[in-house]
Amino acid sequence: MSAESLYPFLDTPALVLDLDKMEANIKEMAGIAREAGVKLRPHIKTHKSPYLARLQLEAGASGITAAKLGEAEVMAEAGITDIRIAYPLCGEIKLARLRRLSESATVSCSLDSMEVARGISSVGQEMNRHFPVLLEINTGMNRCGALPGEEALALARKIAALPGLDLVGILTHEGHLLSTERSLASLRQRAIEVAEKMVMTADLLRSNGIDIREISIGSTPAVRYNAGVPGITEIRPGTYIFNDLNEMMSGVATEDTCAVTVLVTVVSIPGDDRAIIDGGSKTFSSDTLAHHEKPGFGHIKGHPDIVLDHMNEEHGYLKLSDARRKLEIGQRLEIIPNHICPIPNLADKFYGVRRGVLEKEIPILARGKNT
Amino acid sequence: MSAESLYPFLDTPALVLDLDKMEANIKEMAGIAREAGVKLRPHIKTHKSPYLARLQLEAGASGITAAKLGEAEVMAEAGITDIRIAYPLCGEIKLARLRRLSESATVSCSLDSMEVARGISSVGQEMNRHFPVLLEINTGMNRCGALPGEEALALARKIAALPGLDLVGILTHEGHLLSTERSLASLRQRAIEVAEKMVMTADLLRSNGIDIREISIGSTPAVRYNAGVPGITEIRPGTYIFNDLNEMMSGVATEDTCAVTVLVTVVSIPGDDRAIIDGGSKTFSSDTLAHHEKPGFGHIKGHPDIVLDHMNEEHGYLKLSDARRKLEIGQRLEIIPNHICPIPNLADKFYGVRRGVLEKEIPILARGKNT
Repeated sequence: MSAESLYPFLDTPALVLDLDKMEANIKEMAGIAREAGVKLRPHIKTHKSPYLARLQLEAGASGITAAKLGEAEVMAEAGITDIRIAYPLCGEIKLARLRRLSESATVSCSLDSMEVARGISSVGQEMNRHFPVLLEINTGMNRCGALPGEEALALARKIAALPGLDLVGILTHEGHLLSTERSLASLRQRAIEVAEKMVMTADLLRSNGIDIREISIGSTPAVRYNAGVPGITEIRPGTYIFNDLNEMMSGVATEDTCAVTVLVTVVSIPGDDRAIIDGGSKTFSSDTLAHHEKPGFGHIKGHPDIVLDHMNEEHGYLKLSDARRKLEIGQRLEIIPNHICPIPNLADKFYGVRRGVLEKEIPILARGKNT
Repeated sequence: MSAESLYPFLDTPALVLDLDKMEANIKEMAGIAREAGVKLRPHIKTHKSPYLARLQLEAGASGITAAKLGEAEVMAEAGITDIRIAYPLCGEIKLARLRRLSESATVSCSLDSMEVARGISSVGQEMNRHFPVLLEINTGMNRCGALPGEEALALARKIAALPGLDLVGILTHEGHLLSTERSLASLRQRAIEVAEKMVMTADLLRSNGIDIREISIGSTPAVRYNAGVPGITEIRPGTYIFNDLNEMMSGVATEDTCAVTVLVTVVSIPGDDRAIIDGGSKTFSSDTLAHHEKPGFGHIKGHPDIVLDHMNEEHGYLKLSDARRKLEIGQRLEIIPNHICPIPNLADKFYGVRRGVLEKEIPILARGKNT
């Protein structure tokens, strides 16, 4: 397909979703979980689409993970019934929403404080049930979470003593490994260490009478290596369904396994040093690469030498020499973004294509559900 | 109002719009245009709301500016009839949409190439009219646009010779001054130089028989200084309706003239070195400050010492010492973001408040309209 005729039936910018590639990604991760003997609970923050969540469930996922209550509500409304909210829910408005959501779906939450635990405890008591919660463990991301070992035990004891909730497990997100590790060998080693810390912490809690049944870990680059660590019960990768330039740079994806590209049009070539495309930060987000190992904001398929150098909201600046010879106004380009997750959040739909033909428009129903 | 009780009727994250401050901002800019004797055509990319566009029109704006055709369509659907699309429209799908849009509104476009001019010429010919266009001039932003002087003249001659369009004016956006200038004195000087270059270029075109009637410039920090340059006919500022930390740092806004804050909740304080809020890059965008003169992603009202240091999609990391003493889980904070324009694009509505009371929810109808 020549660049000039790329998807002429689509207006730009557009998110082009290659269904064959996506289905292969879904299948591959389901296989990883199956081989490791763990449950797969994909994080839907990446796609925000109940339709795609359902494809993941049909391929063997045991439930889904959401970051925000608003995402979970959209998924429940679409009939998805097993949802883990990997986020500390805080405040009366959120608790009222959690209670309503729990009437139509099996919901569990992560937490790392007594303040949040007391809120969920109150919901459980009002509903006359034991609300399932997982204690979040900080395995190096330094975001939320108690430290593995004694700090986790001290908090777990207090949480487990509350009425109206059931501390069913522990959970971590090792997303930091994408940034901290620079080779697949070190990524593998650190990913295994994360899993081992989790198992050790679960054992410590169990030996202190806390009945930890679930050990949930997850991040797309890591689960290839740590899902099989004995004791792990669940993985929660998100990005794998699409992949992105970050995953390409880390070595766990290739151009051919990146399922979503941003289709853009060259709209101006005002000089030989640059060309302007119709996608900027309101299409690509301003996320840089995890390692900053490559300048710019994406990989331009077929033009690895051209850099998407910087952006304004609706303009992307391609940096190149001989711009007027290499590109033309009206030409279309497909760009694999640095980080895919924020990008569907900026769009209303995916254009699902198979071998270049539009097969299905997939609405991004949980777009912008950040509460 | 104590931080704990900030807008308890709102769920978080939320965009809180102080209506008094916004109305003052609208009035101030209308005054600047009136005193300078120029038309005001606000850029609606900042708010993406037909309701707010109408307030700007009622305060004296002569029309609006949109970046994308999709934004213009939303505004036209809401009954706004004079729309300038400050963007080169490219491709058959866009031209068909432009034709439809022109049936319900007076639309003009900017352009900087013969490729785009020929497309609009064809629309004009099909509609049996002369479609109004403005030649974009590059006054230093190095984005789109012909260079002032001879390059502009050469292109203008060719465009003006096309049937079906009317080259009514020239247009520039001097948004680069926010980044390049580090004092109000130098900003003022450069802003005036931009306007003078535009007037000079218009005169050159006129002296070559091209009837340039409009000279349109604009960017929130610059128009305070260059709107009054003789010959300028129109200004197109956008950010002024809300202001942001960039405008505060440049000296043209203060905390008190920033009309939109992001209301967030502290959801985790896992250690004394940090607190986690429920707004991340899917709420704030990842835009850094224009000058990088301050670390982080926003100014936390009442806590100038706390830095919103980095973000993941749904988590913001506050960097501070003694976190457990200074903040508590459940506490609400109001944050003035680095750059306001991408932020309404991530939300569905503004919560319009007056003296702390919710007065009106304002839907962001042109959110995500990036085609």
